[in-house]
Amino acid sequence: MKLYEYNAFANPRRVRIFAAEKGIQLKREQVDVLAGEHLQTEHLQRNPYGAVPTLELDDGTYISESAAICRYLEGLKPANVNSENKLLGSTPKEQVLIEMWDRRVENGLLSAVASFFHHGTEGLATDKYRNNEWGQHNKTQIATEMKRLDEQLRDNNYIAGNTFSMADITALCAIDFAALLNIPISDEHSALQGWYGLVSSRASAAA
Amino acid sequence: MKLYEYNAFANPRRVRIFAAEKGIQLKREQVDVLAGEHLQTEHLQRNPYGAVPTLELDDGTYISESAAICRYLEGLKPANVNSENKLLGSTPKEQVLIEMWDRRVENGLLSAVASFFHHGTEGLATDKYRNNEWGQHNKTQIATEMKRLDEQLRDNNYIAGNTFSMADITALCAIDFAALLNIPISDEHSALQGWYGLVSSRASAAA
Repeated sequence: MKLYEYNAFANPRRVRIFAAEKGIQLKREQVDVLAGEHLQTEHLQRNPYGAVPTLELDDGTYISESAAICRYLEGLKPANVNSENKLLGSTPKEQVLIEMWDRRVENGLLSAVASFFHHGTEGLATDKYRNNEWGQHNKTQIATEMKRLDEQLRDNNYIAGNTFSMADITALCAIDFAALLNIPISDEHSALQGWYGLVSSRASAAA
Repeated sequence: MKLYEYNAFANPRRVRIFAAEKGIQLKREQVDVLAGEHLQTEHLQRNPYGAVPTLELDDGTYISESAAICRYLEGLKPANVNSENKLLGSTPKEQVLIEMWDRRVENGLLSAVASFFHHGTEGLATDKYRNNEWGQHNKTQIATEMKRLDEQLRDNNYIAGNTFSMADITALCAIDFAALLNIPISDEHSALQGWYGLVSSRASAAA
């Protein structure tokens, strides 16, 4: 297996943290997104959508979409009810609540941060279309999404409930990418700040 | 179980078609999105993000995000390698390729259609923010996304490979919603048109 990725971005980091939590070593190769390598033929043959991360399996199959890649890694070392670390859950209800929250964070906070990056900042030189008003709207949406997570975390230690999961990984990567864009967690969101201290102190956060 | 949904929209239809394919009967209740019922307290207590569909389990748990709801339904009647109907796949590789394609369609075509609806047409009366330029950009993105699916379907009977799957359901719902907005499949995309004839003739498409 080999992961084609780009160190600085939030989505590849989701996969790196997930693999670190599972104790899975991944060979990695950088696709220089700033230099536009993701849109060159070599990478488009791996992923016609031009996205990173993309995982190459030993049989030559390419898998993309971060959450799908993580589910594949989970299948290599599946958690059970007795596992300490159930990133995708172990019972059907746990699994579906984690997937629900992971999608809420991906389509909510992470999407808003990415849209602000591409439209409201200088973004990538390869971004052909830029809509600054849309970018600024997404900047305000980041605050809305952080508030929603703060509310959830007032009653829960972690985003999908009482154990660390994929949803926390996605939120951590989104929040750290927002911080790079000078959007910190507001002081009003103390539950989110407390959670951030907890998850960012895990060894996997260095991945 | 009860599904809170809105008949006319693409995401609730994904769940209805999935349930029909699995032979699962769902009690349904309409949330009148045009009248803003999705943003009223009663529905926000089911789903703080205000989205439909939302599935209420018999123990009172609410599950949202269409793909997560479908995965829950799959868990009630799981497919195996011998099943005729493997909407989420049966082997790990099948499962992850279906998830990859379902996410590509959701984040690609379906997202572009929804963004065009909310920003480039009259959308919903409850849409507080509207950015017509963003809406028109998404209209051109719909053509790009349909072209990608057309290319995939030149070599495959179905979107994720040789069997009907969740990814086909998502694409069918996105394409029918685009048609409602007067965006048909282009005549250039003959593979996509052939696939459309195939999947829209399944009994479940009436759901």
